[in-house]
Amino acid sequence: MYRITVIPGDGIGKEVMEAALHVLGGLDLELEFVYAEAGNECFMRCGETIPEETVKLVRRSDATLFGAVTTVPGQKSAIITLRRELDLFANLRPVKSLPGVPCLYPDLDFVIVRENTEDLYVGDEEFTADGAVARRIITRSASRRISRFAFEYAKREGWTRVTAVHKANVLKKTDGVFREEFYRVASKYPGMEAEDYYVDATAMYLITQPQEFQVLVTTNLFGDIVSDEAAGLIGGLGLAPSANIGEKNAIFEPVHGSAPQIAGKNIANPTAMILTTTLMLKHLNKTQEAQKIQKALERTLLKGIMTPDLGGNASTMEMAHAIKKEL
Amino acid sequence: MYRITVIPGDGIGKEVMEAALHVLGGLDLELEFVYAEAGNECFMRCGETIPEETVKLVRRSDATLFGAVTTVPGQKSAIITLRRELDLFANLRPVKSLPGVPCLYPDLDFVIVRENTEDLYVGDEEFTADGAVARRIITRSASRRISRFAFEYAKREGWTRVTAVHKANVLKKTDGVFREEFYRVASKYPGMEAEDYYVDATAMYLITQPQEFQVLVTTNLFGDIVSDEAAGLIGGLGLAPSANIGEKNAIFEPVHGSAPQIAGKNIANPTAMILTTTLMLKHLNKTQEAQKIQKALERTLLKGIMTPDLGGNASTMEMAHAIKKEL
Ligand SMILES: CC(C)[C@H](C(=O)O)[C@@H](O)C(=O)O
Ligand SMILES: CC(C)[C@H](C(=O)O)[C@@H](O)C(=O)O
Repeated sequence: MYRITVIPGDGIGKEVMEAALHVLGGLDLELEFVYAEAGNECFMRCGETIPEETVKLVRRSDATLFGAVTTVPGQKSAIITLRRELDLFANLRPVKSLPGVPCLYPDLDFVIVRENTEDLYVGDEEFTADGAVARRIITRSASRRISRFAFEYAKREGWTRVTAVHKANVLKKTDGVFREEFYRVASKYPGMEAEDYYVDATAMYLITQPQEFQVLVTTNLFGDIVSDEAAGLIGGLGLAPSANIGEKNAIFEPVHGSAPQIAGKNIANPTAMILTTTLMLKHLNKTQEAQKIQKALERTLLKGIMTPDLGGNASTMEMAHAIKKEL
Repeated sequence: MYRITVIPGDGIGKEVMEAALHVLGGLDLELEFVYAEAGNECFMRCGETIPEETVKLVRRSDATLFGAVTTVPGQKSAIITLRRELDLFANLRPVKSLPGVPCLYPDLDFVIVRENTEDLYVGDEEFTADGAVARRIITRSASRRISRFAFEYAKREGWTRVTAVHKANVLKKTDGVFREEFYRVASKYPGMEAEDYYVDATAMYLITQPQEFQVLVTTNLFGDIVSDEAAGLIGGLGLAPSANIGEKNAIFEPVHGSAPQIAGKNIANPTAMILTTTLMLKHLNKTQEAQKIQKALERTLLKGIMTPDLGGNASTMEMAHAIKKEL
């Protein structure tokens, strides 16, 4: 029996979570779900975007499903807080084209491994006489840890090449450190090809030759940017799942946000959240069950049952029902 | 008579410069060219990547054409030095599809305005006990200046919307300053629509709805990344021109680098450098001549005369000869 914390959050976060849990319910899984709060509605009720109680529940569970939250300017970001407090250092973002979905590249399959705890995300900023300054922190230990994660992941999943993405021609010291540690780790994996690209070049290659990529590993902010770009290649954020993984805990969330403009209309695409549950199942060593959901989702999409963002006319829950039937 | 400093630089920089000057030679222009050195070959000869003499020549000329340089790790970057020393605060990067060129989007026409003097490009980095830290500087004055440039440019060129790109949800202070100044400037242009997006969302929208963009304005590093991405949309870096513009001086350069792997083979695509000369001609108020080159280039591409990167089999100079004939 696994204990799963469920944080639906705000806006479409709640809708796609309902859809994903509906699909999960079609499998014979020993999962116990515990609900927890985070985000703006939570803030309205209790004055906090990420209550200590929620952090505790996440800490004590085997895995956490996170929908999406609205973060009002000035508020503390629930997801950044969770990533840092629980030291979920690896943000795994698979980029895999889905059958039947209209997109630029119907044949992509690679993964972005994003460092999740430092870089400009440390929140170390201050105002100056004429503006502000932010500190970009890159450590050897975090660079080593994320590189090792990338190579281990590559090995386990059968990839043969890992590509580091950085801007060491400008950020000579910070990204110099990142690149150095990357190659130091690479040398421990003699069977694996290691290469590195500048982030600007990568942003272009993602468009002109994305089929070349296997496992990309990069610092926090670059990972944020290139993973959204990559989601665009396969049809948009409605399709992009992610996993925040640490030594002890893991949180699974779609890359998309709470999308207040479309919330409440039952048209949000549940695909990213459903794929997110497959990442969780794999993490819990339930690979077969993850495969079942993946296949059922693919069959559903091939039948043209999809939400309006993909050109279909199914509602969020209609998609969920169809997928559950296909299980 | 205009005085133009010409910095061919290294690798294909020299080749595309020769091609572009060949095309320029076909017009009846009163231009005086003065050659100057920069880059790695210059470093080998004189121990400096950007000699004081070159900076002086650029300072004294009406415009400078810059090919591309190779920057060996540890060397001072010639182009970053020029941008900062001459206070070339605006980096203009038009994204315009060309006829006959195979690309994802044959109908794009927008422009990226990149702040060119601060952000993580200030080179303020130091090593720490376990890594390094870099300072990201954003000032109100530079944010205001680049925003004003973007709105003025938009007005002059007949655009109706300016979009600020930032990451103020994470960089609350630095990008908060940028966004605030952007909207403050926007309020002086009541006829113009102003909006803002997160950089990650922008990286995705550039793929899923690039036709929506008109004028994008952003900080230095985000501009670096999204402009390479945008170049990918219209067929690659071989097609992307740029202008570095200050109060007193201006340097025109293709977005691509010196590409040592293909240097010396006469296969480099001269299009970006040739388009770069049209940006220079417009800057010198020679709009008709700029148009002539643009049209001749388009006719050449439509005839299928293009370099291998675009699927053609013309050499760099064959393309240049063909364009000159079309003038
Ligand atoms: C919501 C935001 C803080 C977050 C990030 O920048 O990491 C999001 O864009 C993501 O990619 O998960
Ligand atoms: C060569 C490099 C320093 C430069 C930059 O990062 O600005 C280049 O990528 C560019 O876009 O002009």
